[in-house]
Order: sequence, then structure tokens, then C-alpha cells
Amino acid sequence: MPLIPSWVDSANAPDCDFPLNNLPYGVFSLAEEEPRCGVAIGDMILDMAAAEEDGLIVLTDEPLFALPFWNDLMEQGPAVWAALRARLTALLARGAPDREAVEPLLVPLAEARLHLPFVVSEYTDFYAGRHHATNVGTMFRGAENALPPNWLHMPIGYNGRASSVVVSGTPVRRPWGQLKSADHDMPAFLPSRRFDFELELGAVVGTPSDGPLATAGAEAHIFGFVLLNDWSARDIQAWEYQPLGPFQAKATATSLSPWIVPKAALEPFRADTPAREVPLLDHLRDDGPGLFDIDLQVTLAPEGQPATTITRTNYREMYFSAAQQLAHHSTAGCPMNAGDLLGSGTISGPGKPERGSLLELSWGGEEPLTLDTGETRSFLQDGDTLTLTGHAQGDGYRIGFGACSGQVLPALKDPYRP
Amino acid sequence: MPLIPSWVDSANAPDCDFPLNNLPYGVFSLAEEEPRCGVAIGDMILDMAAAEEDGLIVLTDEPLFALPFWNDLMEQGPAVWAALRARLTALLARGAPDREAVEPLLVPLAEARLHLPFVVSEYTDFYAGRHHATNVGTMFRGAENALPPNWLHMPIGYNGRASSVVVSGTPVRRPWGQLKSADHDMPAFLPSRRFDFELELGAVVGTPSDGPLATAGAEAHIFGFVLLNDWSARDIQAWEYQPLGPFQAKATATSLSPWIVPKAALEPFRADTPAREVPLLDHLRDDGPGLFDIDLQVTLAPEGQPATTITRTNYREMYFSAAQQLAHHSTAGCPMNAGDLLGSGTISGPGKPERGSLLELSWGGEEPLTLDTGETRSFLQDGDTLTLTGHAQGDGYRIGFGACSGQVLPALKDPYRP
Repeated sequence: MPLIPSWVDSANAPDCDFPLNNLPYGVFSLAEEEPRCGVAIGDMILDMAAAEEDGLIVLTDEPLFALPFWNDLMEQGPAVWAALRARLTALLARGAPDREAVEPLLVPLAEARLHLPFVVSEYTDFYAGRHHATNVGTMFRGAENALPPNWLHMPIGYNGRASSVVVSGTPVRRPWGQLKSADHDMPAFLPSRRFDFELELGAVVGTPSDGPLATAGAEAHIFGFVLLNDWSARDIQAWEYQPLGPFQAKATATSLSPWIVPKAALEPFRADTPAREVPLLDHLRDDGPGLFDIDLQVTLAPEGQPATTITRTNYREMYFSAAQQLAHHSTAGCPMNAGDLLGSGTISGPGKPERGSLLELSWGGEEPLTLDTGETRSFLQDGDTLTLTGHAQGDGYRIGFGACSGQVLPALKDPYRP
Repeated sequence: MPLIPSWVDSANAPDCDFPLNNLPYGVFSLAEEEPRCGVAIGDMILDMAAAEEDGLIVLTDEPLFALPFWNDLMEQGPAVWAALRARLTALLARGAPDREAVEPLLVPLAEARLHLPFVVSEYTDFYAGRHHATNVGTMFRGAENALPPNWLHMPIGYNGRASSVVVSGTPVRRPWGQLKSADHDMPAFLPSRRFDFELELGAVVGTPSDGPLATAGAEAHIFGFVLLNDWSARDIQAWEYQPLGPFQAKATATSLSPWIVPKAALEPFRADTPAREVPLLDHLRDDGPGLFDIDLQVTLAPEGQPATTITRTNYREMYFSAAQQLAHHSTAGCPMNAGDLLGSGTISGPGKPERGSLLELSWGGEEPLTLDTGETRSFLQDGDTLTLTGHAQGDGYRIGFGACSGQVLPALKDPYRP
């Protein structure tokens, strides 16, 4: 599919994240105003609340956009999503008859404050990247036992903490936690020394479900995607995670990029999941290419210093797709809701510079990474800013996600006497 | 503390779950009416929405009770909770001057439909009963390694799935899932054959927090308690839970009793946590007795048959209190919200008839339980109704929880062609 030109000129630049082919969904506010729904186009935001009030976009009897979240639109289901996308395209395409009515409703992106684009109903994090699982498994259990026995048969996941999900730009405070070193009998309560990021893509569930979904059916429930940084305290995790999984190691924060990129915008960039090493059970079988060709990169900037690109990889590297994850998530009858967020799992490629976490990049701290500034990193230091970006590359345009960024603040001096 | 007599005579009976000393919070509806807040007293419910509308109970400028959840009241914090309790006691005590105004607002409990009493913001399940952890650990890892190394140092917990929490009386459908038997190379997709219950107490977080809480501070955030049955598919769990913990095994349903028993009602029944085998880190240390003396029992009734009591135990048996769990939950800065539900973990006593799950009662299926009907059970069968009840015994009265009940429905024939 070629670029669809827009009368918003900035949207037609080849390196613009938000051409008319994208139309991602966000929530913004200006100065003292209330947050409301907006759609990014070039370097502008279309004020959806105003467009609805002016009668330019009317999808249902109830207002959908004078709200600080997209959940109500998401619940309407795929037919309404498609109608919205068609209407937005008609309003913003070059030569649109309504241009004069729409133009006053555009707000410069640079002037807006961006908020979380949806209410995160619940957050589930998966572990569905084979290179990541192999790297981590090799470090902890040796190369022979790197993948757990169940790993190739199901997308392993655990429930995360929705209350800790924050929008890009929110600083993240280094957590305290129980740490236990091999040479001490007792744990100590200390700030994490192995605070890390995880590069992930988050799938946003749109239409609710109330029973098991197979992969083909699950696909239709997915509304869109965001970049996701699953901040992880490796030392807290190592001590707490047996036998019931990660808990406080993952509860400090999970950062999201501020725009939900519609699944529809990514359709031209579909990619197959890899060949299966063992056959999947029927309900987990792919129904067409379940992944997307999305280039991803991570930069690390020490405080006051320029950023170094530390990872380049691609969402194509996953072993299980978001639809397979949603299918597995619903097998036991678990009700899924609009706004459920499914983290892909860390996206690492096969090569060393393609690894999606410092744990892997520094091989557990044994091989510190050298930044362009000459500094080294095994794990994150106070003041570091971590930024995830990504886009699908079209012919002369791209579908971008915007940045998912966060700076590490020093731990509280004493968490119980703040 | 003795019984406080009420002019609602049924509340003064020694075996009534809901005397004036209790005043638990629920949500009810009659026939075609909308669900709204109510308080149980004897065999009646005080319609809180009506009491508020009539000006009998006015705590804030905004209405709090014409809502199908107690979360708004919970967010007001302990001073408002105490004011509400004092006002309810004044209205319902024998000799209350407002009796004539209040009496028409009472609805027979038997005529009401009960709903979930609060919106479950997020659900966390702990593993903080020592007898349970020892039993399960012995079955899976042998007596020498029964308790994981971290177990005595922190209340181990994992995030559960709030969307699957249901109110007592909701039937629970046996789930399908990936099962892997030791004598097969590949997993199969089948209905669970080892579907089980877990007897727990759920703590309901009232006041939100946004940073680490020590145990003493956490205590003040807890609003009340419910009975909780954490339905568990043991065969799904055995295959899926390594390395990231239980997921679909616990996602079918979690049942709650319909009344939140206020923490204030349980204060006279405080009990100490057990002596510590290893000292706890400062932020987890008890600040007074953190448990409650609450007798608990579980009955199992095969379809159309009388119920057998299969477990009698007490909440005093826990190793970690709800306040310690909430403190641990917040260590990494995890924001906690009104309506967060913390499952205690399975409450087993030291003796065999005190075990809080069939997994323990039948020792992994090796020692089937014989019911009063002569039938045996290793795990739950279709049609079985499981009922949890509990109360704290006062002098001539008791603080009861009402029943937490659910019947097991047969698995769907084919979950993908319902």
C-alpha cells in the first residue's frame, strides 16, 4: 500500500511517524484543559472531542471522544473501528471537502501533554520471544535446559500489575526490595542494583470476550499496539520468583508509548511466525501471518549525555503472536476486557546487538556494554533515560509508534520516611 | 465486647451472622431494580441508597450509596469508615430514636439478589499459609525442600485475574486447558481432571497508596474481609507454572462471599501471627496482632445430595497477615487502589481435617476423601457444590461472613464451537 497523501503536509514526509496511513489513537490535554481523545496526523493532533461535537465524526448515540480514554470506542468492536478509520481518512486526505471544518480542530503535537491512551483494565506480560527465553534460560539453567519444557507449546505468561502502567515521559524511581546474595544467609532490604528494561510490544484488547477464543477468533479482538518497556529489577526477581513468578520485580512501572497504533495500520506489514519446532495444539495454530515487520530500537542516554543506540531488533522475531497469546489467555474461560494489555515478552533478535534487555546485552553483568560516551553499563544507573522507538517501513512512508521513554530516578533515601 | 442489641430482633440471635456488631457491606437488588449498596442486619438489608436519599446517612457532598459498589466509600478513608459505622450503630441499636424512619428502608435478605460488593481493581493471591505451603511443597519437592528458601522471609504472592472474580452463587464451569501427563511426550487440550478449591480469606484495600508501606502503615489501608475460594485446576497448573507462576490454572473463577465484613467488626478477635522462625526485615514486622480468630469451614455437596463438612480450620493459622502482605506488595512502589483484593493464600491447619484444598485433603489424589454420602472425592466432580463459611465467635454473638458458594458445571463440550 502506498502513502495516502494528507492535506496536513507534515504527514507526507517519509520519516514522519504519523502519516494518514497510521492514524494512531491518543489522549492529550492543553494547558488547563481536560484530557480528551485525539488522533495524530503529521505534527498535529486532531481533537476528536471537538470533531464529535461539531458533528464531523458521529459513530454512536453516546459521545465517545470527550473522554480521557479510548476504551468506549474499543468496546464498539471492529465494524465501528473500521468506520472511524474510513471517516478519519476521508476528513484528512488531500482534497477532502471538509478540510475547512477540520483544520481549526488541529492542535500542534508539540504543545500537547500526552496521557495514557486507555484505561489499562488488566496487564498480562508474556515470555514469548525465543531468543530472549533462550538467553535468560542459558544464564540461569545452562544451555541444555534453556527453554522450559512447556515453552514451545504455549505462550508462557503471567499477570502483571495494571496500576503501575505509566505513559512515556513518566520518570521511574529505582525500587527497593528484598535482595539475597549467594554469600549471605539472610536477605537484605536495599535499592535494586540490577534495574533493567525490557523492550516489548503491547497488544491492546478491544472487544471483550467471555469464553475460550481460538487464535483465528482472538485476532479480531485486538485493537492496536503500543511500545512497552517492562522495567525489571533482576535482583528482586531472582530472590522472589520461585515458585509463583515475578511480583515486585515488575511492579515499579511499565511504560507505554502514548499512541495506540491501530492494527489496521499494520496490516500491510504482516509477517509469519517462525516455523514450529513442535506442532501446536489446534486452538493455538496460526490463521495467517500473526506477526508484523516492525523495526525496533532502544537508546540509552546517561544524564546530560547523548544517547547511544543499544539495541536494534524486529517484532518479527517473536515465536508467538498477540493473537496466540490472547487465545491462550482465554483457554480457561478467563473473561477478557476492552483495555486489557498484553505485553509480547522481550523482543530479542538472534545477534548480540539485537537483545532487548541489559540482562542479555551485558550477559548478566559479565560483559558490560560500552556506550558512545565511553561509559559502560551492566544495568541502569540513576539518571539514565531509556527510549524505545519503532516503525513499520512502507514505500516512502512509515507507520511509527512515537517514543516510549523514561528516566531512572534515584531510589528513595528511606522508603518509610519519605 | 458484648452483643450490641438491635431493634431488628433477628440480629440478636446468637447464631446470626449479622448482628449489630458486624454491619457488613454488600450490594443488592430486588426484582427489576438497579443494584445498590446495602448493609446486612439480622435477616434484613438496610437500603443504604434510600437511607442516604432520606438524609439519614450523609457523609460527604457526593452520594456514596446509590451505586453498585462500595469503592467510593472505601476511598474516603478510615475516618469516614468510622463515622459510617457509628451512624449505622446509632440508627439500628435498640431504642434508636430514628427507628421509625429507618424501618421502612429494611428489605428482607431472602428476597434480595446479592452482587459483588465492590469493583475488584486488581486481584493478588498470596501463599502465606505455612501448613498449606508445607503440604504442597512436600508433595512436589519432598519434605526436605518443602518451603522455598524465600518463604519465611516474605509473603510470596502473584497477581491474579480480577476479571474472573465472581460473587457467591455464580456457577463455575470446569475449564479446558493444556495438560501434560508424564507418560506422553506432547500436551493435550482437555477439560481439567484435577479441579480444586482453595479456602482463603480476602482482604479488601480501602485507601489508595502510592509508595512503599510498612506493616504498621499498611494496616490502616485495609477496609474489610471476605471469604474467598480460589478455584484451581491442578493439572493445568502443574504444566504451565514454570517458570512464571500460575496463569490459566487460576483464571476460571475466584468466588467471594457477598458481604465485606468491616475490619472494625473483627478488631475484638485479633490474634498474633505465629512465632517467627527467622527474623523478618523491619518493614514486615508485626505491629500488634495481625491475624483474627475466625473459624472457617468448607462443605462439599454432590449434586442433589446433602453436604459433608470436609474442612474446619481458622484464619489464625496464617504465617503472614494481610497487613504484611500489603506491605510487601507495595515495596517496589506498586500503587495500590481501593478495591484491590488480596487473597490470604490457602488456610490449612496442622491436622488432616484442617486442610484447605482437596489437593491436600486427598494428598494429590492418593488418599481420596470419603463423604457422608459414601461417595469419594480426590478432586471436584461436575455438579459438586462447594461452600465456605466462617465467623468470629463473640460472647453470645458472632461476626459471620455469610456463605461463599459455587457449583461446578461440566466443561463445555467443545470450547470453540459453543
